Amino acid sequence: MEEFDVTIREAQPEDAENILKMMHKVAKETEFLVMDDVGLSISVAFFKEQIRQLQESMNYLLLIALDKEQVIGAASIRSSDEKRLSHIGELGISILKEYWSLGLGSILMEELITWAQENDQLYRLELDVQSQNQRAVHLYKKFGFSVEAVKKRGARGDDGRFLDVLLMSKFIDHFEAD
Amino acid sequence: MEEFDVTIREAQPEDAENILKMMHKVAKETEFLVMDDVGLSISVAFFKEQIRQLQESMNYLLLIALDKEQVIGAASIRSSDEKRLSHIGELGISILKEYWSLGLGSILMEELITWAQENDQLYRLELDVQSQNQRAVHLYKKFGFSVEAVKKRGARGDDGRFLDVLLMSKFIDHFEAD
Repeated sequence: MEEFDVTIREAQPEDAENILKMMHKVAKETEFLVMDDVGLSISVAFFKEQIRQLQESMNYLLLIALDKEQVIGAASIRSSDEKRLSHIGELGISILKEYWSLGLGSILMEELITWAQENDQLYRLELDVQSQNQRAVHLYKKFGFSVEAVKKRGARGDDGRFLDVLLMSKFIDHFEAD
Repeated sequence: MEEFDVTIREAQPEDAENILKMMHKVAKETEFLVMDDVGLSISVAFFKEQIRQLQESMNYLLLIALDKEQVIGAASIRSSDEKRLSHIGELGISILKEYWSLGLGSILMEELITWAQENDQLYRLELDVQSQNQRAVHLYKKFGFSVEAVKKRGARGDDGRFLDVLLMSKFIDHFEAD
């Protein structure tokens, strides 16, 4: 693969179509994504409206990585509106296979964690990842996530076999300045 | 408490208002319910429509317990439409405090598990429960659930303190007759 310049920025409503295109490709490349064609069958118009709403929300960040005009990855943190859970951010990262092993995951993780640290509301980050997705597990460990559970039968592969899913988490602490 | 006759049946659209009333009361009685007034602020009409839809769905069961006309408890299993997760049923039970310690939890659990065993699609049941909700943890263990994770900071109490939340699961296996 040739060199490329990557741009990282918050998703805009106009990106909806390109993000969906990328997600469909990611879903075909591996078994790692939970969303299938049904989950991804939302319309561009609906997803556009979702992005518009999340731009105004304090509990959702959606970043995209671009190689020129092409969306090559996405990363998000989302937290609940319920007050008992609003301190928990659910994290997700997807990258096109062609762009693996170039450090893009680390760049996106740094952005996500910086945003979480600046978000006074968040005290815990968590994510689900298939244990067979070793590259992702390695990335999350590198950024301080630890395994809280091995969920047996936590997902199914394309052939229907049961897969282990790891529940991983990381605390965020906010220290006030004097 | 006097004796009472309990009726257990699937929720009907007409029950929407009484179920919401019960859930609001449960949410006030303890910290155990994740849903708060925001989560419960859905309209009766909307919830009615949800019940109508779930009645036609194979991946959602909503049972209610009644003392005469009053809804005193609810129990549900819900699974995802995504094919990687459709074998996982998420389980929940809520009972009005006044009706605790009468064996109602066990009656509802038996119904849920029987339904899960008859549902060819389900191979794993899971639930989240606050570790301080010892009565519920005891019930789930009695029915074969085991703790997969102690989620630190998994929820917050009314005073904002962090609470441990247990992730519990139980396998369902379907054995075919000869």
